[in-house]
Amino acid sequence: MPVLRQDPLTGEWVIIATERARRPETFARKKNEEDHYKLNSREAKCPFCPGNEHLTPPEVLVYHPEHAGLAYAGSPGTAAGTSPHTSSRAGYAAAMEESGGNGAAWAVRVIPNKFPALERNESIKWDADLFDRCGYFQSYQGYGVHEVIIETPVHNRHLGDLEEGELSLVLRSFADRTIALGEDPHLRYVQIFRNHRREAGASIEHPHCQLLGLPYIPPLLEKEYTRAHAYYLERGRCLLCTLLEEEEKDGSRIVLENDSYVAYIPFAASLPFSTLIVPREHSSSLETNRQGWEEKLAPLLREFLVNLSERLEDPPYNMYLHTAPLRSQSLPYYHWHLALIPKLTIVAGWEMATGTYINVSQPEEAAQFLRS
Amino acid sequence: MPVLRQDPLTGEWVIIATERARRPETFARKKNEEDHYKLNSREAKCPFCPGNEHLTPPEVLVYHPEHAGLAYAGSPGTAAGTSPHTSSRAGYAAAMEESGGNGAAWAVRVIPNKFPALERNESIKWDADLFDRCGYFQSYQGYGVHEVIIETPVHNRHLGDLEEGELSLVLRSFADRTIALGEDPHLRYVQIFRNHRREAGASIEHPHCQLLGLPYIPPLLEKEYTRAHAYYLERGRCLLCTLLEEEEKDGSRIVLENDSYVAYIPFAASLPFSTLIVPREHSSSLETNRQGWEEKLAPLLREFLVNLSERLEDPPYNMYLHTAPLRSQSLPYYHWHLALIPKLTIVAGWEMATGTYINVSQPEEAAQFLRS
Repeated sequence: MPVLRQDPLTGEWVIIATERARRPETFARKKNEEDHYKLNSREAKCPFCPGNEHLTPPEVLVYHPEHAGLAYAGSPGTAAGTSPHTSSRAGYAAAMEESGGNGAAWAVRVIPNKFPALERNESIKWDADLFDRCGYFQSYQGYGVHEVIIETPVHNRHLGDLEEGELSLVLRSFADRTIALGEDPHLRYVQIFRNHRREAGASIEHPHCQLLGLPYIPPLLEKEYTRAHAYYLERGRCLLCTLLEEEEKDGSRIVLENDSYVAYIPFAASLPFSTLIVPREHSSSLETNRQGWEEKLAPLLREFLVNLSERLEDPPYNMYLHTAPLRSQSLPYYHWHLALIPKLTIVAGWEMATGTYINVSQPEEAAQFLRS
Repeated sequence: MPVLRQDPLTGEWVIIATERARRPETFARKKNEEDHYKLNSREAKCPFCPGNEHLTPPEVLVYHPEHAGLAYAGSPGTAAGTSPHTSSRAGYAAAMEESGGNGAAWAVRVIPNKFPALERNESIKWDADLFDRCGYFQSYQGYGVHEVIIETPVHNRHLGDLEEGELSLVLRSFADRTIALGEDPHLRYVQIFRNHRREAGASIEHPHCQLLGLPYIPPLLEKEYTRAHAYYLERGRCLLCTLLEEEEKDGSRIVLENDSYVAYIPFAASLPFSTLIVPREHSSSLETNRQGWEEKLAPLLREFLVNLSERLEDPPYNMYLHTAPLRSQSLPYYHWHLALIPKLTIVAGWEMATGTYINVSQPEEAAQFLRS
C-alpha cells in the first residue's frame, strides 16, 4: 500500500509511492564524459581559476592556505585525471604553479556575482522608492546581494574532494559573509546554496556555492519558522531538537553521525536520498554557533559527500543552508541545518501543481544504502 | 535594476532578473531526434495504443469518435512523419486500421494507473486505521486514486495537434472524472496534470494526462484558497476576477483571448513563458461551469499550444488545473484556471532552498513573443 507521511518541519504530506518504488541502486548515475575527474586542474578560460582573478569583480572575502593549516608551496604538480581523493594537495600545487605560483595564492575566494539576480542600489530611498506600484500589481526594486563562494582554486575538485581544513574554510566563509551582510539593515535573510553538475543547475564547472542576501524572508523559511514557533509555544522546546531525538531513537534513517552532527534522511523526505545535516547542540544560526563548529562539521560533510559520490556515481545534487533571519540573535525555537538533495528524478506537473512530492524511494532503504 | 514582483494569488515574491535576462527567442528548444512527428501513429508495444487495451486495467470512462462529431471511418490511412497539423484525421484512421479498424474505436480513454501513486483500499476503517503512528511521526495509508487520461488513439499526436472536437472531449473528461470521484467522501481534491516530453517528466510518449484523487488539499491550493478567501472577505469579490480585469486593462501580458477565456503570462510569473488560462465568467470549478465551457476552451487552448510549439520549437511543458475542493459547490472567492509551464530552465538549489523563483525572462517580452 502507498503511504502518506507528514514532514513535521513543513507540515507537508509526501506520498511514499511503494507501488512504484525503486531500489536504491537504480538511482546511480550512468557514468559519462562529463566527469569532473577528466577536467584539468586549471582551465585557461575559467573565470574562477587562479590567474584569472581580473575576470571577476574584486573579492569581498579571501582566505589563504595558511588559514587551513595547509602547506602547499613546493609540492610537485600533477596533471589532470588523477583522483583528487589521493592527490588533492598535489592538484592544488599544480593549479598554483600554472597560475604563476606567486604568493597571492588563495584557498577560498568570495566575489560579487558578475550577473547578479539582485543588487544593492545605494540610491534607493527606502521610504518612498522601494514600494513601487505597477498599476494594480506590487513590485519592489530588486535590492539585495548576490555572491559566489569559490571553494578551491583547483578547477577539478569537488566539495567532497577537499581536505577537512579546506572544507572548514568554505563553511567558515558561510558564517563570515552572513555576519558581514547582517550589517545592512535592509537585508533580512542570507540564502546560501550549491548546485553540483550541470543537471543540477551549475552553469560554471569550477566548484562554487552561491549566496543571496534578501530584503524578505523566503516562503519555505517562513513556513519552517512559523511551525517551529507554534511548536515552541505549545511544548516549550525546539521542534528540530525533538525530531533529532526521535530520529536517533528510531535509528533507521540515520546515515552518519559524530559527536556534534547527525546526517539523516527525514521520515517524510520529499525526494530520493534527500538528507539533512543537523547540529546536535541547539543553535538557530551559524552566527550563534560555538567556536570550532565548522571543524566538527567538515569531516562529517566530507564523509557524506564521498559516500554519496561512491554509492550513486557522483550524482548531481543541490545543497542549501536553512538558518535564522539576519540579526535574530539566538532563537530558542529555530535550529539551523544543511540540506543535501541529489537530483535523481524530474520535477514535473504533479510537483508544479501541488507543491508536494511523490517519493519513489523508501527513506529507510535509502539511508541503509548510503550507510553500507 | 533587478525587480521583485509579488504574485497576488500566492503572495510569493519572484525575482525578475533583468541583469541575467534572456531574449525570448533564446529559449527555443534545439531540434533533436526525439521529435514526436518522427514517431509512428501506432506503436506495437505502446500500452496506450489501440489494440493494446488488454495491457492496461479496464477503462473507467471512454468517449467514442461520434462524441466529438468526428467521422473517421473509411479515411485513407497515412504513415508516420506527416504533420498532424494537416492530416490528423488521416493519422487517426491509420491508427484505427492498424489496430484492426473494428467498431470499438475510442477517442478518449480513462484508465486506472497500473503503477498508482495512491490506491483505494476498501478495507480501510476510516476512524481507526487511517491515522497511523510510526513512532513519533505521522503517516496515513496512502488512500486515493491515480488515473491516466489517454487523449487520443494516435501515438504521435500532441494535445495541440488534436482537432477542436477531440480536444473538447479531453477537457470534458476532466469534468466527468472529477464529478464521478466526488462521490467518494474520502477524497478531498482532484489534481489533473500533464507532462509533455521526457524532459518534463513524461515516461510514456503516447499523449496522456494524469489525475490524482487525494484525501487532502495540496499546499499550493490551500495557499490560493486562503489568500483568495481573505481577499473576498475584505473586498467582497473574487481575487482572480480582479486580476483578470487588471491584466486586461494593462494588456501587455495577454497572449490570447476569446469571448470566454483569456491566456496571459502573470505579472509575477515564476518561470519563463509560464501562462494561465482563465475563464472570463466567474466559476470555482469545472463542475459549476456553464454547459459548453469545453467547446469554448478547446480552440483557445489549441491555438496557444500551436503557437508555443511553433515559437519555441515544441518545448517540454507541464500543464495543470487548479480548481475548488471536491463537492464545494459554487465558491464565490475561488476561480478555476489552467496553468501551462514550459520547462526551459533547471530548478536548482535556490528554488529548493526558498520555494521561490528567479525568472530570467520578462513576462511582457515573453507574452509579446508568443503573440507575434
